[in-house]
Amino acid sequence: MVRVIDLTMRITPSIRVFPGSPQPSFIPWSRFDSHGYDSEAVFMSTHTGTHVDAPSHFAPCLASIDMVPASRLVCSAVLIKAPKGANQLIEREDFENEPVREGEVVMIATGWEKRVAKSNYMTENPGLSEQAARYLARKKVNAVAIDGPSIDAGADSKFTAHNILLPRSILVVENLCNVSKISMTRFTLVISPLKLGGATGSPARVLALV
Amino acid sequence: MVRVIDLTMRITPSIRVFPGSPQPSFIPWSRFDSHGYDSEAVFMSTHTGTHVDAPSHFAPCLASIDMVPASRLVCSAVLIKAPKGANQLIEREDFENEPVREGEVVMIATGWEKRVAKSNYMTENPGLSEQAARYLARKKVNAVAIDGPSIDAGADSKFTAHNILLPRSILVVENLCNVSKISMTRFTLVISPLKLGGATGSPARVLALV
Repeated sequence: MVRVIDLTMRITPSIRVFPGSPQPSFIPWSRFDSHGYDSEAVFMSTHTGTHVDAPSHFAPCLASIDMVPASRLVCSAVLIKAPKGANQLIEREDFENEPVREGEVVMIATGWEKRVAKSNYMTENPGLSEQAARYLARKKVNAVAIDGPSIDAGADSKFTAHNILLPRSILVVENLCNVSKISMTRFTLVISPLKLGGATGSPARVLALV
Repeated sequence: MVRVIDLTMRITPSIRVFPGSPQPSFIPWSRFDSHGYDSEAVFMSTHTGTHVDAPSHFAPCLASIDMVPASRLVCSAVLIKAPKGANQLIEREDFENEPVREGEVVMIATGWEKRVAKSNYMTENPGLSEQAARYLARKKVNAVAIDGPSIDAGADSKFTAHNILLPRSILVVENLCNVSKISMTRFTLVISPLKLGGATGSPARVLALV
């Protein structure tokens, strides 16, 4: 039987969110003793926690998250180990040890996931250099996934990699955790955003099948 | 390569919701021309659209949705065809043609998914009889999934099947669509709720791998 590694952050009211995004709220909605069941509503950014960016996040005329075909959500993935510190760039050379194939998910393990509790997690994260983003665009990968809050370094206010990849319909998966638990280089990845009509992204369950 | 059938409803402000639940709202949050990217926040019940009920939905002391281990989210499933009309019960006898095995997902195709646009979709749906729910509980299945809004018939105000299955930690998956597109009896199912801390359920992406 397949083993499942859960790469998904838990969404709580105190989860770290991107600067300017609202903290999630859970609103009690029904009670077991009066309605027969407990339930709640949730309010959150569609880019909360482990999430997928749709092309429309940076290319408003392109596909929203509900328009991404399900066939793209179950895919082979390659793990690229590229340990990086604050604001360091993932360079073209970091992809030299493993072939990157058209149509696969490129998952980048920077190690930044270990810093999720630090004050600079959201603002000084590592990210792709322009040259590295252009390389992945040329490779026509299905998605780029990362163990930090953004594929762009915290210092990059121009969102260079987002602006290269999303207009080319390459998906972006951010805020992965547990990437350090993956011991193989290639595996099957399930990326499960909600099918939110017209939305620019969605929180997602992301599962590595190893 | 595996073929993926998406069993997930699109979540929109006009999606059919369970009586008493709020309609989802999408709130614009950032704009491409002023912030550099488009984004939105979403407000919705955690039981909106295709969703998973955690044990805590009907058994407040048991597991919330974030406590369900990821190993339960990728599972073999058996499809039980049991065509039913308004308020009709799925009976113990409907499970006689296929063996139901411990630890698998039992997916029930009632055909009610075709009635999603009808006025009685949410109020007169078919559901499990008490005897059928007790049979599935004895079988110790991982989850019961259905192509209607509830595993309990609309007329069943006591939520009989929920009250039998959830206290035994059997997951419930509701509001599936496209079940009629599955042509085989057994397949792998991926059930992907969000990891919402402490919540009684979550909207989910549900994918059949066939």
